[in-house]
Amino acid sequence: MGKILVIGATGTVGSAAVAALGARHEIIEVGARRGAYQVDATDPESVKALFQFIGKFDGLITAMGGVHFASVDQITPEQFMFGLRDKLMGQINVVLLGQQWMQDGGSFTLTGGVTAHEPIRAGANASSVNMALEGFVRGAAVDLPRGLRINLVSPTVLEESVELFGPYFPGFEPVSSARVGLAYVRSVEGVETGRVYRVGY
Amino acid sequence: MGKILVIGATGTVGSAAVAALGARHEIIEVGARRGAYQVDATDPESVKALFQFIGKFDGLITAMGGVHFASVDQITPEQFMFGLRDKLMGQINVVLLGQQWMQDGGSFTLTGGVTAHEPIRAGANASSVNMALEGFVRGAAVDLPRGLRINLVSPTVLEESVELFGPYFPGFEPVSSARVGLAYVRSVEGVETGRVYRVGY
Repeated sequence: MGKILVIGATGTVGSAAVAALGARHEIIEVGARRGAYQVDATDPESVKALFQFIGKFDGLITAMGGVHFASVDQITPEQFMFGLRDKLMGQINVVLLGQQWMQDGGSFTLTGGVTAHEPIRAGANASSVNMALEGFVRGAAVDLPRGLRINLVSPTVLEESVELFGPYFPGFEPVSSARVGLAYVRSVEGVETGRVYRVGY
Repeated sequence: MGKILVIGATGTVGSAAVAALGARHEIIEVGARRGAYQVDATDPESVKALFQFIGKFDGLITAMGGVHFASVDQITPEQFMFGLRDKLMGQINVVLLGQQWMQDGGSFTLTGGVTAHEPIRAGANASSVNMALEGFVRGAAVDLPRGLRINLVSPTVLEESVELFGPYFPGFEPVSSARVGLAYVRSVEGVETGRVYRVGY
């Protein structure tokens, strides 16, 4: 039983984490525009203000951020930067600025995705961002003090997202939100750090 | 025999690429401050001007860009962004803006590093950037038109760099620049795309 912040709680993946953890933890739902609290994770000042308002916690899950889908012969440097600022630095900002508010032994759980390992059409930004998140978790795990842990959940396309994203993932077997939720439980309630939990691939 | 641009040609890794390829190719050496031509790869306008001046080429190697070394409980969002802008987007800018200048069947070869897979102290920015480069190459390879190829060389610490970087890599076996050079030959003269060539680890 602990106080767990979920940033991106109202999204498809965040909802899966909340559903899996809600029975045994106090969940604080944070969103960009919905949830009990709002934050712009791409803005360090907004992130600092969120933590100052909420105070100490035992775990933090991030399941937010977008990337830009476009063929590599069309995407511009500015469009590529969007994914770096939003899905990548959004989640990293929360870790860098949230450490001081986390109780000893608490855990960060970030969210990546299948495109890190399985390329798709128009997915260079997604593959790059999701690999960068894996690298960050790998590097951060060896530095974090006070027994803090950090892991990444990397799901394939969710059953709930097939209608929206399915055409980008031809032949990819979708995964249930229940299975995705279990990966967050494993990260939060388990003992490991620096791990990437692939779900459904 | 082809016209190969090497951006970062005067650095330790770039020199290894030039030495390995110079006998069989026309090498155009580009640097941030040295070399026959200069470019600020973090600035799309500077990159565009370089290609407009040089014209068509058969291959492009990037071996440049820095990251910020600091413990994850000390590094700021701004410091973390440095590595994303410099080593990551610097190399990506060159690919995005250079495609139109590359002859059919030509190859891009980017440079990552061992920290993608082997975490070191104060290396979260390095691990993240080097993994992001691997993800970019994986994603870009499936999109590139006209038989263009893209690969990544990921060396461990070079013998020539041990004095400078050795303390960050305790017990890591250094690799010779000759072996690193071979990986660039394999990428440029070989047939593969979307590959990561690890050297020395």
